[in-house]
Amino acid sequence: MSDLLRLRPAATPAMIAVFDDAAVIAHACAFEVALARAQAAHGLIPDAVAAVIASGVATHQIDAALLADEAALAGTLAIPLVARLRGMLPDEAAAALHGGATSQDVADTVLMRQVKAACRLLAADAHRLYAALARQAWLHRDTPAIGRTLLQDALPVAFGLRLAQAAAGIGEALAQLDAAVARHAVVQLGGAAGTRRGMHDRGRAVADHMAAALDLVAGPPWHARRTGTVAIGAAVGLLIGAIGKCARDVSLLAQNGVGEAQEPLVDGRGGSSAMAHKRNPTGCQVALSAAIRAPGLVAALLAGMPQEQERGLGGWQAEGPVIADLFLLAAGSAAAMAAVAEGLDIDAGAIACNLAAAGMDEDIGESAAIIAELLGQKD
Amino acid sequence: MSDLLRLRPAATPAMIAVFDDAAVIAHACAFEVALARAQAAHGLIPDAVAAVIASGVATHQIDAALLADEAALAGTLAIPLVARLRGMLPDEAAAALHGGATSQDVADTVLMRQVKAACRLLAADAHRLYAALARQAWLHRDTPAIGRTLLQDALPVAFGLRLAQAAAGIGEALAQLDAAVARHAVVQLGGAAGTRRGMHDRGRAVADHMAAALDLVAGPPWHARRTGTVAIGAAVGLLIGAIGKCARDVSLLAQNGVGEAQEPLVDGRGGSSAMAHKRNPTGCQVALSAAIRAPGLVAALLAGMPQEQERGLGGWQAEGPVIADLFLLAAGSAAAMAAVAEGLDIDAGAIACNLAAAGMDEDIGESAAIIAELLGQKD
Amino acid sequence: MSDLLRLRPAATPAMIAVFDDAAVIAHACAFEVALARAQAAHGLIPDAVAAVIASGVATHQIDAALLADEAALAGTLAIPLVARLRGMLPDEAAAALHGGATSQDVADTVLMRQVKAACRLLAADAHRLYAALARQAWLHRDTPAIGRTLLQDALPVAFGLRLAQAAAGIGEALAQLDAAVARHAVVQLGGAAGTRRGMHDRGRAVADHMAAALDLVAGPPWHARRTGTVAIGAAVGLLIGAIGKCARDVSLLAQNGVGEAQEPLVDGRGGSSAMAHKRNPTGCQVALSAAIRAPGLVAALLAGMPQEQERGLGGWQAEGPVIADLFLLAAGSAAAMAAVAEGLDIDAGAIACNLAAAGMDEDIGESAAIIAELLGQKD
Amino acid sequence: MSDLLRLRPAATPAMIAVFDDAAVIAHACAFEVALARAQAAHGLIPDAVAAVIASGVATHQIDAALLADEAALAGTLAIPLVARLRGMLPDEAAAALHGGATSQDVADTVLMRQVKAACRLLAADAHRLYAALARQAWLHRDTPAIGRTLLQDALPVAFGLRLAQAAAGIGEALAQLDAAVARHAVVQLGGAAGTRRGMHDRGRAVADHMAAALDLVAGPPWHARRTGTVAIGAAVGLLIGAIGKCARDVSLLAQNGVGEAQEPLVDGRGGSSAMAHKRNPTGCQVALSAAIRAPGLVAALLAGMPQEQERGLGGWQAEGPVIADLFLLAAGSAAAMAAVAEGLDIDAGAIACNLAAAGMDEDIGESAAIIAELLGQKD
Repeated sequence: MSDLLRLRPAATPAMIAVFDDAAVIAHACAFEVALARAQAAHGLIPDAVAAVIASGVATHQIDAALLADEAALAGTLAIPLVARLRGMLPDEAAAALHGGATSQDVADTVLMRQVKAACRLLAADAHRLYAALARQAWLHRDTPAIGRTLLQDALPVAFGLRLAQAAAGIGEALAQLDAAVARHAVVQLGGAAGTRRGMHDRGRAVADHMAAALDLVAGPPWHARRTGTVAIGAAVGLLIGAIGKCARDVSLLAQNGVGEAQEPLVDGRGGSSAMAHKRNPTGCQVALSAAIRAPGLVAALLAGMPQEQERGLGGWQAEGPVIADLFLLAAGSAAAMAAVAEGLDIDAGAIACNLAAAGMDEDIGESAAIIAELLGQKD
Repeated sequence: MSDLLRLRPAATPAMIAVFDDAAVIAHACAFEVALARAQAAHGLIPDAVAAVIASGVATHQIDAALLADEAALAGTLAIPLVARLRGMLPDEAAAALHGGATSQDVADTVLMRQVKAACRLLAADAHRLYAALARQAWLHRDTPAIGRTLLQDALPVAFGLRLAQAAAGIGEALAQLDAAVARHAVVQLGGAAGTRRGMHDRGRAVADHMAAALDLVAGPPWHARRTGTVAIGAAVGLLIGAIGKCARDVSLLAQNGVGEAQEPLVDGRGGSSAMAHKRNPTGCQVALSAAIRAPGLVAALLAGMPQEQERGLGGWQAEGPVIADLFLLAAGSAAAMAAVAEGLDIDAGAIACNLAAAGMDEDIGESAAIIAELLGQKD
Repeated sequence: MSDLLRLRPAATPAMIAVFDDAAVIAHACAFEVALARAQAAHGLIPDAVAAVIASGVATHQIDAALLADEAALAGTLAIPLVARLRGMLPDEAAAALHGGATSQDVADTVLMRQVKAACRLLAADAHRLYAALARQAWLHRDTPAIGRTLLQDALPVAFGLRLAQAAAGIGEALAQLDAAVARHAVVQLGGAAGTRRGMHDRGRAVADHMAAALDLVAGPPWHARRTGTVAIGAAVGLLIGAIGKCARDVSLLAQNGVGEAQEPLVDGRGGSSAMAHKRNPTGCQVALSAAIRAPGLVAALLAGMPQEQERGLGGWQAEGPVIADLFLLAAGSAAAMAAVAEGLDIDAGAIACNLAAAGMDEDIGESAAIIAELLGQKD
Repeated sequence: MSDLLRLRPAATPAMIAVFDDAAVIAHACAFEVALARAQAAHGLIPDAVAAVIASGVATHQIDAALLADEAALAGTLAIPLVARLRGMLPDEAAAALHGGATSQDVADTVLMRQVKAACRLLAADAHRLYAALARQAWLHRDTPAIGRTLLQDALPVAFGLRLAQAAAGIGEALAQLDAAVARHAVVQLGGAAGTRRGMHDRGRAVADHMAAALDLVAGPPWHARRTGTVAIGAAVGLLIGAIGKCARDVSLLAQNGVGEAQEPLVDGRGGSSAMAHKRNPTGCQVALSAAIRAPGLVAALLAGMPQEQERGLGGWQAEGPVIADLFLLAAGSAAAMAAVAEGLDIDAGAIACNLAAAGMDEDIGESAAIIAELLGQKD
């Protein structure tokens, strides 16, 4: 009943794990425990009750498939999950569990924990990609090559300039993603109508405590204010687009009539079921495919923004799977292109030969200085 | 490692199964068997070889998780699948397997088989929804109710008119989907470059034979001509939007200040983890959430159309998961709203009371005749 | 205050005129006249009054800029337009004008009249494009050329096969657009709440009469049921994508390392402000640019479908400009690529030379038969 | 030939002017003058030549309609514009004009100048909207009202809480837009292949000089690296979504069964051509309509990111009109909702009456503190 064949070409196993059932359940349980501990720390429930909740939740086994059925029926994950947890806790702890919280508090906090985990994974591959592109760009900062505009030969450039531009775009997108997460990965704790009712004026303190425990940002509730999730998703979309630019260029360089660079030879990769001689740009395929899919996912996030009243109907519920898809695509794209960039097979002979055949001179203008500026390096 | 929690709110188990690993593998094997049989029927390979292929493929067990890893590496499902099948066939059959075909022939044929299975499932729920709406509309073809435009009270309408309009929209979308599938669910058989090379001028006959065996339409190869897949996906998007219109209306009717209709009471559904008294429009939530997500998915299909040359890089590879997502969303939406419409709790007293409170007369114009026309019924 | 520089690269002057102020006003006036005449024909108002309305409307001059300001204030075009027309009619005719109609009746009918005019224009250019591609495809049905898949050399194809595939995609999209318009270009006449109140049970007859007069389809009101407009817009998006496929291929063929085909030389077109030697694929640029923009426009139409109640708030008002943009993009795309295809500069020498250099044989399989099938021709 | 009726409902005259022909031509001329002056300042051309260019350009009249035709033919604005300017300059100045620049340098710099002007206009209206919402939110920080979740009555909230959430979302989006423009509104100066060839190693100094003169940011060329334009467009989309949230809420509050707030009465606004008694939420309609259209526009920008090589084909050419549309929609949305918020007609009696009728208590939890935190105010 799994759908690995559908997910795998576009994602990494590690990123799939960030958004799988086990992760959702673990984060949801972490929410309930952090809430109890924060309420105990601020005198809303006894410390002992919080401890019982924590140990009870830690040892409980949950059948994900059954829970998924119950959640689909209930329309929300928290109701069946809380019911199951309450069922195995002693009465006082059961009554205290989830106190003052609402389903969306759980769902949004889970999502933001996943976002942070996803960003850590993604940044690692994206930085590998950046570093590999930057290294190759710097190596080829003085190598004259055909510059091409509107898909036609134009004037010479340093071969490294195109790579440096791609790297810089990826760097800019990563910076935007980092900033969005640093600003918007806020714990959600608003209660049923977003007023923190029943928290005896200690709601903000409880939320701050939870934010620290869950490694999230503190802030007021944001049930129907989705600027944060959308900004994060848009930044992931930007990164996918920036990686797509790199993939487009590598795939064009790898054309048989051009041959200036190729994806690395990897056993079992890039072949054809019909043509043994082919060396397909499979990493580029993954990245370009992601770049085709991502814009519509960002559009879905934006389309959901006009949410109704205190907590909307349909809008925020649409976000989780879309955010997950964006990170899954980004992960696949970054990992595939990191491998491509690290092993990029650049053919200096072809570069020189093409330039000569085009009858171009070797005046690459200020290419090297521009590369240095793009990469933040000293020339 | 499954992601049921991510899929379930938006899909039905039956539709998830249409697009899961087992289904993909089964359809891919069916392709290879149908190809062998068609080639035998037209004298390209011996009948006995086709029979060996058919029985071999039928008995072979494939580990989906391993295959998914191999497919992710190869960049295509067919290469590792064919390698595994060849590995367990005798030499002559192994050599004949997949003869003249290419990876995309398998992938596209699998997709179209899934589309047909998905449409059958979807049509069942959508017709249930249509029928329930039509029945209620007809019942209330003379019930005066407040008509509302631009979210303001306007003039009276038959209460059934709004339901009939929703039904008609769903009917139109279903008709468009049926037409698209009838026209475009074409078997894919083009070979490496789409020329049916190596088929000894019997390529068309082989493809026709396969189409009949696989319950698909016969036609020329369409590797880089994606009009069909996009038209099908767009029709699913249209259906999701049409169901979303119905959900929007039910959710507005169910507002506490209105109360003219509500979702049926279902044990365990529509509750709140914080407010026991609530009766949330959970079916509408599923449908509205789908309606927010679907437009971006259709956009992704359209964005992939300008595919390169004989078979593109990234474009068609992006389609499969997107088409699957559209059907998963449509299935969840249709099933949820079918249940809502079948049990719709219409409060005639509230309808009359609201009308009176608004000081409206009961002149519902030609509502009944319009309902009859919308539903194709005799007045 | 015009924005020609913004519109021109992507549209034709004729298509701009279809959606300009003068056209909107003319169609709106035609609606009012057709309504009066239909009501007279069915005894709702005197023939003489209808005649006065018709002649009054015909001679009245309207300042579009002033009307635009008033419409922006009112939130709808019909209110200020009807007020202006009433102001210059005698009392009885003024009272009869717009009888039983609502603003959206005017807006939607205007839109469908524009859709029909736009389709006529678009079809002309798209058929020119189709015909030119089909002619070249047929000419080159036996010319061996490199087939390319995943941007890599694959196996030989007939040079005409790629063109025939592009033509077939355009033909399929055109057929879908024709069908959508034939089915959905319905006159809008529902009145304030979509009940045809005040029409004395002759609403359907009046609407049928208007449909005939305005060259539109007859049918029940569709104020909040937008399946038709969205299906039409999606079909235009499909056409833009299909043309984009052709543009992608021409631009790749025109690369300096390939040189198998080029856009025709047109004085003043395709140059560079910095490089006099360049021959940029400017027609392809227009079409590819349109193909990037269109998917999001279709997404906007789909996103607007869940409209509220009898007539929605924001959804249908968003459609008009989006439909216009789609046709403007399609017009520019079709016209640009028709010119490209009609003058396509195919270099048979380069085709043969590339094939030889790639070391390929000349077995183009069943290319010619597939071309014939794609084009509906006898082989 | 104008299309005011198409633009006006969604835009302000001032914002239309930012993107009209006159503005494009003025900014393009400013680019050429700034380039000449910067080259003179850095010794690349004589000061006197720069002065001749400046005065010549300043006095030249350009026919926008003719230029639009020429630009459509050429595929770029700069070629015919530079040709016209050269035609009226003495030889030396004509030769120096546009030295080292390429068409896209002009187009991108024009776009960024428009972006800055548009942001100034937009910020003014958006800040008006923010301030009005914040003021009303603060006034009603202790007013108990029904809180509504999933379109159902939930628990009481301060009436001001919903407004404060809307204000905070708008504030966050504005901050993101400011940051994007401050970071990415970079002058474009790369020359034909983005190497600043022909600038004699003074390209960076020339670009810095131009940036200062044109009130833009200095930086390396970004011809095919579109992170900046896309980030800016996405931020505008975020703002439109945030305003849409406010509009959704006002339109729901204004329903006849609710009546807690209404748009201000404005003569000539919000009426119905069929129902004189209606008070339509016309400002909300504009904002909701924009919120439906914006996501697809952002998707188009993202879709264009994988641009080819040094300067792409189709991608960047698609951006200008899309960025313009986003600002036009944002302007209309912000202006409409600023007027709504400033005159918002809040009915305290209805609020209290609804609360009582729902049988709710008045425990609004920490609403006031949350409002203070959302608005950055002392409680």
